[in-house]
This record gives sequence, structure tokens and C-alpha cells, in this order.
Amino acid sequence: MSEIHLDDLDRNILRLLKKDARLTISELSEQLKKPESTIHFRIKKLQERGVIERYTIILGEQLKPKHLALIVLEVGKPVIEDFLERYISYISSTLSALPGVLFVAKSGEDKIIALVGKNNKDELVKFIEENITSIPNLKHIQIFPITEIKKGEDLTGFLAEV
Amino acid sequence: MSEIHLDDLDRNILRLLKKDARLTISELSEQLKKPESTIHFRIKKLQERGVIERYTIILGEQLKPKHLALIVLEVGKPVIEDFLERYISYISSTLSALPGVLFVAKSGEDKIIALVGKNNKDELVKFIEENITSIPNLKHIQIFPITEIKKGEDLTGFLAEV
Repeated sequence: MSEIHLDDLDRNILRLLKKDARLTISELSEQLKKPESTIHFRIKKLQERGVIERYTIILGEQLKPKHLALIVLEVGKPVIEDFLERYISYISSTLSALPGVLFVAKSGEDKIIALVGKNNKDELVKFIEENITSIPNLKHIQIFPITEIKKGEDLTGFLAEV
Repeated sequence: MSEIHLDDLDRNILRLLKKDARLTISELSEQLKKPESTIHFRIKKLQERGVIERYTIILGEQLKPKHLALIVLEVGKPVIEDFLERYISYISSTLSALPGVLFVAKSGEDKIIALVGKNNKDELVKFIEENITSIPNLKHIQIFPITEIKKGEDLTGFLAEV
């Protein structure tokens, strides 16, 4: 990874594209008061250097799960330490493959964090009962229902499944 | 919100655009083996109905925070119940405005979930000490450092700040 220097123009281009990646060179040129050739060159460089990794879409309300819960699982430490890592990997993969599981991460050596989204509360509760609380050898489960997103609300439309 | 019916073609278009929103009508037409006019019409409809909410960019490695932690704050219940909601709102807004705070949500009545990202571990620890553990009236703080993202890794490049 090469050291990267972004000037104000680069950052402004990135900010605008984050809000709307369909803006044309000419629209960016107008908003940022720079020649189109400059904008074109900068975007090309940002893409080539991988500062812009890729372009994507955010899905709308109809496809966003309405009920989210963050789940923190703590796995009991087995006698044979080596088992723990493999067991955590196994649970993570299994969870990742389930519909409605939007995000899975490992925390420390013995915890798994998962974000689950379903269209209604009953479905969410049922999913947790069937797929989470039934996992063997859990030491502790914490379920944090998400009542309101205060920052990063776009996240749901970004992670939503089609 | 109107009930929505997406057929296989719609879903395939959405899946491809999620991976690369810069695909042209003609590339989509080729991959999905449908006429360009059909693809064009479907995308237009998906946008009009808000199934595609907007287009955005995912930022690359250089701008992704390298160290993430999920933080769960539990606020002590004050004597006057009304205070709790306002206090939670206040903490949420304050946190949301801080650099490196990528996501903030309310959980239940008395908890706040925040995802914080910094470029190195020391910065992350310092940030938590200065901005989180110093918040008054906290009943409980849990910090879950994210060791490895197993699903939804793109999240960091999506939430990263410019």
C-alpha cells in the first residue's frame, strides 16, 4: 500500500461521489468550479490508485430489513485451545451463510458479533431462537435490538440482500 | 410504501449492480442475455420505484480505518425517566459528530451502540478513553475490538470518512 496524499479537490470529489456516484464529469466540474479535464484526470487517478475501490448501489426501503439486532456471542473455552479458533470459524461461516445475516465479525479470541435483519419482529425472534441460541457451547449471548439508527442509516440499504 | 414484486431479472440486475454499479446497459444485457431495451426499462423502473435508492462509491484500503471496535454503552437510569431519552439523544449526537465514529444506534431504552474506526490501536484506545469512558452516568461499557470481519467486509470502505 503506497502512502497516499489527497488534496482538497480529491476529497471533495470523493465526498460528492459518495453522495451520488452518478454525477457526471460536467456536473462535478460545475459544482467544484474546476475544468472537466481536471476532474476527469483526478477521478482516473483515484480509481487507478484504488482510493475508489468500486461503485455500488444502495437498496431502497422495500428491500431493507425493518428489524435489526446486533448479537454478541461468547463461546465457552474448550480444554483444547486449538478447538476454539476452529469452532469460532465454523460458527462464523455457518452464520454468514444464513439469509438475513448482514454482517459477521470475530472479536477477540472467543466472541462473534453478528448483525441480523428481518422484516418483522417475530421473524427476527424466531431466527435468533432457531439459529443463534441453539448453537452449542455458548457461554454467553447478548442481543441488542436496534431501536433507532442515529448515524450511518444507509448501512441497511448497503448490506441488504437481494 | 407500495408492495413490490421483483422477478428474477430484477434481482439479477440488482445483484450485478451491487457488485459493480458502473456496468453499462450493454454489459448487463450481455451477461443476463436480455435485450438492452429490457435492461434499460428495468433499471429505470427500479430507480423510479426507489428499489435502487442511490449510487455510491466504496473507498479503498488507504482510507479504511484499520482498527475497529464496537462499543455498547449502557446509561444509568435517572430518577426522572424523561431524562433518559434526552440524555441518550445527547450522547448519540455528540458521538456521531466525532471523527472516526462510523455508526451510532440506540438499542432499547438505555443503550447506545457505536462503531469506531481508527488507523492504529493506540489511536483507538486513546479515542475510547477520551470520548467514551469519560461520558458521565454510564452504568456499563462493553468494548468489542473487531479482530476479523467474516461477512460484510465492504462495510469499512462504505462507512469510511473522507
